[in-house]
Amino acid sequence: MISERLERQIRFIVEVDALKDVFRQTQNIRSRRMENDAEHSWHLCLAAIVLAEYAGQPQLDLLKVLRMVILHDVVEIDAGDTPAYSDAAQIATQHDREQRAADRLFGLLPEDQARSFRAIWDEFEEKRTAEARFAHAVDRFQPLLLNWKTEGHSWRKFDVGKDRVFKRMAPLSDGAPGLVEAMQAIIEECIAKGYLRRAG
Amino acid sequence: MISERLERQIRFIVEVDALKDVFRQTQNIRSRRMENDAEHSWHLCLAAIVLAEYAGQPQLDLLKVLRMVILHDVVEIDAGDTPAYSDAAQIATQHDREQRAADRLFGLLPEDQARSFRAIWDEFEEKRTAEARFAHAVDRFQPLLLNWKTEGHSWRKFDVGKDRVFKRMAPLSDGAPGLVEAMQAIIEECIAKGYLRRAG
Repeated sequence: MISERLERQIRFIVEVDALKDVFRQTQNIRSRRMENDAEHSWHLCLAAIVLAEYAGQPQLDLLKVLRMVILHDVVEIDAGDTPAYSDAAQIATQHDREQRAADRLFGLLPEDQARSFRAIWDEFEEKRTAEARFAHAVDRFQPLLLNWKTEGHSWRKFDVGKDRVFKRMAPLSDGAPGLVEAMQAIIEECIAKGYLRRAG
Repeated sequence: MISERLERQIRFIVEVDALKDVFRQTQNIRSRRMENDAEHSWHLCLAAIVLAEYAGQPQLDLLKVLRMVILHDVVEIDAGDTPAYSDAAQIATQHDREQRAADRLFGLLPEDQARSFRAIWDEFEEKRTAEARFAHAVDRFQPLLLNWKTEGHSWRKFDVGKDRVFKRMAPLSDGAPGLVEAMQAIIEECIAKGYLRRAG
């Protein structure tokens, strides 16, 4: 006998298994295969608990950060991954695609949980709280590490240069100011090693 | 300029990327490819935040549960996955292999963090706190869901029957008593559908 509540919760857990099949543009370091959203989300959780001190927020609610990180990409099950350096048309439709996905996916849960999970995801998207800003910063810093350790794989694929990567890293200034110097040092090393163009 | 502390933290984050290449015996539901430890760990995080109410512990420290779940399998980078239904020889050496792996991997971190992460992992392994027991329960319930939705893939591979699966689910009684009935119902359904042998 399974209660209707638990049935809905199980349906959600089973449905989001599909996040393991949404592939990103970054390569994993050891295997050099494309990273999927589920393992990326785990890697962000890991990075968040290791790097929390760099948020510069002694009151940071790390549980909320982890809830955000766990949930932040599930909308991509329906909406697909919108690559960091994709074209304007893709980015223009991203918001609507992801809102519809959030309606459907969080709507699988019991109502109270659907509301609280959606609120967490909305808070992440709105980037107004320290937790949302730190979660976004980690979501930029982890792909930087992967690019650094895979000779700039996704930068080369999208033919981007230093300026675009710096722009991409902007959320670190607000969300994890303690990581900004390291980010700059890594980018300089990548340029020196030829993984990233200095121009543009 | 990167501080020595942050350098060690980054080295750890980069090293554990390898968890994405440790494969389990379970299949993912949609793709039917083998699940890796990193995406499994994310799926447990997700299940933990959805199912926390079934721990039967109003004071459950969910942040600690998530830390445990995020870290629980990293030792398998060195020690390998020890399948649920593997032989006695593999299980006999598991403890030592995993202890050595924990020494090396957590030892990459700055000392204070190495100690606190190791303490979290030890607490998980010792199964004495409500958080550790709930984390273990989720670590049994999630593979049950995958087996259910993949026609008993890993049960068939190891030729196990109902009794061994029930034994495998024992941690639910302590760690997530609110999930026991659902677990039983799912197992009964799997037997009825021919995914699992009733005998042994």
